[in-house]
Amino acid sequence: MDTTRVLAADIAAHEGAGVTVSGWVHRIRDLGGITFVLLRDRSGLVQLVYDTPPELHNETVVSVQGTVAANEKAPSGFEVQVAETTILGSADSDLPLSVNQNVDNVGIDAILDHRIISLRNPQIRHIFELQASVVKYFAEWLRDQDFTEIKSSKIIGSGTEGGTGLFSVDYFGDTVYLAQSPQFYKQAMVASGMERVFEIGAAYRAEKHDTPRHLNEYVSLDVEMGFIESESDLMDLEVGLLSHIFAGVARDHGDILEEYGATVPATEAMAKTPRISHDDAKKIIKERTGKSAFEINPEGERVLCDWAQEEHGVEAVFVYGFPRKKRPFYTYPEGLKTRSFDLLFRGLEITTGGQRIHQYEMLLETLPKFGLTEEGLGDYCKIFKYGCPPHGGFAIGLERITQKILGLQNVKEASLFPRDRKRVRP
Amino acid sequence: MDTTRVLAADIAAHEGAGVTVSGWVHRIRDLGGITFVLLRDRSGLVQLVYDTPPELHNETVVSVQGTVAANEKAPSGFEVQVAETTILGSADSDLPLSVNQNVDNVGIDAILDHRIISLRNPQIRHIFELQASVVKYFAEWLRDQDFTEIKSSKIIGSGTEGGTGLFSVDYFGDTVYLAQSPQFYKQAMVASGMERVFEIGAAYRAEKHDTPRHLNEYVSLDVEMGFIESESDLMDLEVGLLSHIFAGVARDHGDILEEYGATVPATEAMAKTPRISHDDAKKIIKERTGKSAFEINPEGERVLCDWAQEEHGVEAVFVYGFPRKKRPFYTYPEGLKTRSFDLLFRGLEITTGGQRIHQYEMLLETLPKFGLTEEGLGDYCKIFKYGCPPHGGFAIGLERITQKILGLQNVKEASLFPRDRKRVRP
Repeated sequence: MDTTRVLAADIAAHEGAGVTVSGWVHRIRDLGGITFVLLRDRSGLVQLVYDTPPELHNETVVSVQGTVAANEKAPSGFEVQVAETTILGSADSDLPLSVNQNVDNVGIDAILDHRIISLRNPQIRHIFELQASVVKYFAEWLRDQDFTEIKSSKIIGSGTEGGTGLFSVDYFGDTVYLAQSPQFYKQAMVASGMERVFEIGAAYRAEKHDTPRHLNEYVSLDVEMGFIESESDLMDLEVGLLSHIFAGVARDHGDILEEYGATVPATEAMAKTPRISHDDAKKIIKERTGKSAFEINPEGERVLCDWAQEEHGVEAVFVYGFPRKKRPFYTYPEGLKTRSFDLLFRGLEITTGGQRIHQYEMLLETLPKFGLTEEGLGDYCKIFKYGCPPHGGFAIGLERITQKILGLQNVKEASLFPRDRKRVRP
Repeated sequence: MDTTRVLAADIAAHEGAGVTVSGWVHRIRDLGGITFVLLRDRSGLVQLVYDTPPELHNETVVSVQGTVAANEKAPSGFEVQVAETTILGSADSDLPLSVNQNVDNVGIDAILDHRIISLRNPQIRHIFELQASVVKYFAEWLRDQDFTEIKSSKIIGSGTEGGTGLFSVDYFGDTVYLAQSPQFYKQAMVASGMERVFEIGAAYRAEKHDTPRHLNEYVSLDVEMGFIESESDLMDLEVGLLSHIFAGVARDHGDILEEYGATVPATEAMAKTPRISHDDAKKIIKERTGKSAFEINPEGERVLCDWAQEEHGVEAVFVYGFPRKKRPFYTYPEGLKTRSFDLLFRGLEITTGGQRIHQYEMLLETLPKFGLTEEGLGDYCKIFKYGCPPHGGFAIGLERITQKILGLQNVKEASLFPRDRKRVRP
């Protein structure tokens, strides 16, 4: 008998032959005289048939040898009639959470408290298989556009975005901080001559809110590009990038999208993503809700995405021209407004971006308006003192885009091991 | 005139035509009556010719329009005769470090103190262009082998590897730590049913040594795989992985390897990488140095790589069978030894790996020998309580492999913004 392992998804090709399959006991049905065991591996499920099974619990890890036979009642149309079973890892029978059942009615706290177990549930694990494709296609498309991947430090001596919202670290007796974003570093790398960079890395926000849209640690998909004309170039870039990600996810994970009852926007729909000014966005919110808005709150984000869907056939909308005081100091000004934008997708802001100030003199004039000094920003201003092209960029929250692709209720569901105010385990 | 930007590397295709080129002033040669300006962009250098240049300093960022002409004395055989220049970013003339000269004789502290400027030096920037390819080919090969990319938390409530060497973080008033590795999480994801995972992420070591081989923050290329027979499967995996990375780097960056006088091992050479036991490694060191070694120190690592080069024609060697007390508690025991290995490459350990304990009972027996308790490890032991396959993995330090590919003296040269005991800026 061939002892090379065959994956569950591939057994149909081995009908009549002896195979080895390995995985986790997903479900046991003892019909008296015959026992069916569903075995789970990374590729899916396969039915094992036993006359006399060994002692097995759900989640026991086994390797079995047997013969593949057609059985139209088996999940894949085939089953393995087991000749020999080796137990590779035994399992306690006191599972704190069911692995083989639908988890739609299990609360988020139970799912996260028992994260080590809940990630075994295929429906939950699939979130992260899809998420891996988001990362893959993000990088793939940017490399095709001549972007270079960078890895910058997450330990910073001072905060470029001011000191609030930073976690502090004891660094050999000195206090340093966890970076909120690679903003400083991606700008530095554009100015270095690399011109086009991206980074996939952790970002930290020491903010106390505990909502379905916030994480204290998240994965930021960062992009920065030199030699742009304005923030319009960045919105063009993001439409191309997201279209590539969505197409790739649909191609690789149609089954996961179906499992979640989800779809992704087609490339043609993304191309129609409207771009509206912050002022017009507020008008649309007022028309639709009757309420005046000083800023675009979560309800406003949902209203604007509904509007985009109805008027433009896409669940996404760019809002540009945010007022200066609502954006960080480095945002390129345009009168009282800025060359900045947000992308709202399915009712949630998934991106903030904009052109940055690239002239040293303009930056020095700007700092006092934000209560900042050149010295206080460390080496930041040197990026611009020695020649920097017009540039800008944006960041996409990996967990937020995953959440919105699959229609998850809470962004924490899209983080393998989420961190919030109360949760640093597992 | 077409105002679409043409890259320096592409101007030969535009001979006789009007083009726009943009970039940084790399060097100015005023010959009186005629001025040559080397312009640098992300693709390389192009010569601009001026009768009367505007005021330019090194590093000024410009966009110029002009006509492409052949000139065999120009670096690429072509130059741009400039008609119009637009200054996009002005530059101070007091550059603290030369951008356009060879930096071989500039000390590492000057290079790192002025990191924002030194990264503009093409020779230095190229380190990170090559490094980006290491990351790309690492992920590409593992995806082809059905591995899934994960992103785990870097903020942990307790240390799986004991509490020493951890940086502490103030997390809303509680003390938590920066992860030394994603060990816990990658094992959890193998056990979840994902089976094969990799992660590209930051790792932190609060160790005080300041040597050319240590960083306090580095990028760890982590791999973990289920259903292995022994650590041999992992060494096989790593040979395939490194061969793919080396081949990709050679294909994409032959010019950078040449600039550094470097080569990468061929796939055929990697296949010959010897595997020697820790005991035999010590014997070889004794034979070659006359000194008895209790462990393999940096000198021993160099000696073993020289031996591998001479005896096997490859500058790499696996050392397996480390004693139990030299490896973490989770390492799979084999008598007094362990199923673990290091990979030494060009005189430096670039990988530590091994099979892990996957049986809950064996783990519980092991913990007291290392002064650990199940409770003290948080949720770690639950990974194994509910069924886990035999598994193992390894991690490659991104900066170390970059250093060794290019023959850099100090690993800090291979970190964009390195962190050491004294350095948290820029």
